[in-house]
Amino acid sequence: MMKTAFSYAVIGTGAVGGYYGSLLQRSGKEAHYLLHSDYDQVKRNGLTIVSVDGDFALPQVNAYNDPRKLPRCDVAIVALKATANGILSDILPCVLNETGIVLLLQNGFGQEDFIATISGVKTIVAGLCFVCTTKTGPGTICHQDYGSVILAQFTKDGSPGGITQVMQRIAADLTAAGVSVTTSPDLIDARWRKLVWNIPFSGLTTLFQADTARIINWPPMQQLVKDLMQEVVEGASTLGRIIPPAFVDKMIADTRNMRPYFSSMKFDLDAGKDLELEAMYRKPLEAAAAHGRRLARIEMLYEELSFLQEKNRGWGKRANI
Amino acid sequence: MMKTAFSYAVIGTGAVGGYYGSLLQRSGKEAHYLLHSDYDQVKRNGLTIVSVDGDFALPQVNAYNDPRKLPRCDVAIVALKATANGILSDILPCVLNETGIVLLLQNGFGQEDFIATISGVKTIVAGLCFVCTTKTGPGTICHQDYGSVILAQFTKDGSPGGITQVMQRIAADLTAAGVSVTTSPDLIDARWRKLVWNIPFSGLTTLFQADTARIINWPPMQQLVKDLMQEVVEGASTLGRIIPPAFVDKMIADTRNMRPYFSSMKFDLDAGKDLELEAMYRKPLEAAAAHGRRLARIEMLYEELSFLQEKNRGWGKRANI
Repeated sequence: MMKTAFSYAVIGTGAVGGYYGSLLQRSGKEAHYLLHSDYDQVKRNGLTIVSVDGDFALPQVNAYNDPRKLPRCDVAIVALKATANGILSDILPCVLNETGIVLLLQNGFGQEDFIATISGVKTIVAGLCFVCTTKTGPGTICHQDYGSVILAQFTKDGSPGGITQVMQRIAADLTAAGVSVTTSPDLIDARWRKLVWNIPFSGLTTLFQADTARIINWPPMQQLVKDLMQEVVEGASTLGRIIPPAFVDKMIADTRNMRPYFSSMKFDLDAGKDLELEAMYRKPLEAAAAHGRRLARIEMLYEELSFLQEKNRGWGKRANI
Repeated sequence: MMKTAFSYAVIGTGAVGGYYGSLLQRSGKEAHYLLHSDYDQVKRNGLTIVSVDGDFALPQVNAYNDPRKLPRCDVAIVALKATANGILSDILPCVLNETGIVLLLQNGFGQEDFIATISGVKTIVAGLCFVCTTKTGPGTICHQDYGSVILAQFTKDGSPGGITQVMQRIAADLTAAGVSVTTSPDLIDARWRKLVWNIPFSGLTTLFQADTARIINWPPMQQLVKDLMQEVVEGASTLGRIIPPAFVDKMIADTRNMRPYFSSMKFDLDAGKDLELEAMYRKPLEAAAAHGRRLARIEMLYEELSFLQEKNRGWGKRANI
């Protein structure tokens, strides 16, 4: 049997990884953070969470700027931008122990297939985060709203993985850290449900530099949001996953009730970073296209965002990422 | 029979009305121009056309700032923005003589139905202008590219109006003025053909503040342009008008070959003016919807543009028009 408590290596200590890592550490779990540009600051001052649930600071954290210096852990929390996943081939073999668990906190589709090929990775649990957090400075994360996580087991053939023991242990740790957790027996179903919100709002807040409240309160855009959500439901149905209409209605209602929010994609655009267009748009479109279904509005949003990114780069010049 | 030469009243002496009015005047036709904000300047200095076909100036023109001072003419060239058509009820009864001809140089759909109700209007010929012109200052118009006009006769029931004698006379005048003119027996068909270009490029140059070359040279956007054009073709087909695929291909090829261009809608946005969204998007969408067809991408572009306009107005504050 596995030892009593999981230790956690946080790969990508940004808005998401820093937030959940800090919650786990605060609840007494062993946590180690891999950092890049924020290393000096975090090594010196730790992490600060400014949160609607109450602010807290961890003045001392285990910070590393080199994966080989990080002690091997049971679970690697991968919370990089999906666009940076290429570097995981160098990182995960150094930071995982024989347990070999990856907790993948990323949006979008199909990242697991690549991660599963990396040496030392034995099991992947995806954590779908319904959370509004923003890194506002080195080591400082603002938690604006929500925070729940859906956990689901990755399987190579895409079949439902059920509720595994590893999922249950991670769920217990996150619950003890104060996170609202649910477990899903079917990752594909959970991913498409998450896309119901992400596909309209990541794209539209970025395209228009307008927050969720502006969008949902302008009737033609509310119609567009509903139509985009409906296309996600159609996409899911091509893979045999049935999302009920009530789920779409709830996403609309939740958006109305949440504090005005910009997606992290919008902040990536502002910072001249690559947008997560492949994981969030292209791969779901491909999955539906493989079953003969074109999703016109999602396709259009993807095309528009790719053009906006190109414009933002100064038409053909590459940005510093 | 009608007298030898038509006289022309230009209502809306902007990029389009000023351009074609000047060409008619230069060729010896009697032309009278109704102006508003540019009146003083044009009264004093006339009109200047900076054109790829050769610059010319008309230092003295018949300029008026009051429709009641304008002598009655055979033809009123209506070249206002469609959003300003409401004022035509006050203008046309003053400027038309018993001939009562309107030459409507506007994009989009369904403006004729309203204009046909105005006292003194007896016949409406629509002129669909394939021209890239921009008003660059009071009385100064820059003609960048193209310039041809398709003329078609309006009929109240939307049936093909044939090639009428009035159309032929206007065609002769425009041809003598150096304009490439073709006549269409079917206004509805001609309008939808024009929308094949206008729907993608008016909207996308406005939405992205990007010129036609940027758009057509970015492969995902070229795909979007083609898909939007295909939806226009579908819309036309619901009204029994068949636009062949070669027409779409030609529009793409022409756009590639033309000088980089921003639509007038983009300049309207920059100037804080109302966008021609009703005439260019909503009415064609309604026409297709009346035959049970939703055009997803055109609908989305309309929704996005309406949101952009709302944002541009400062979220709910009305702009000065």
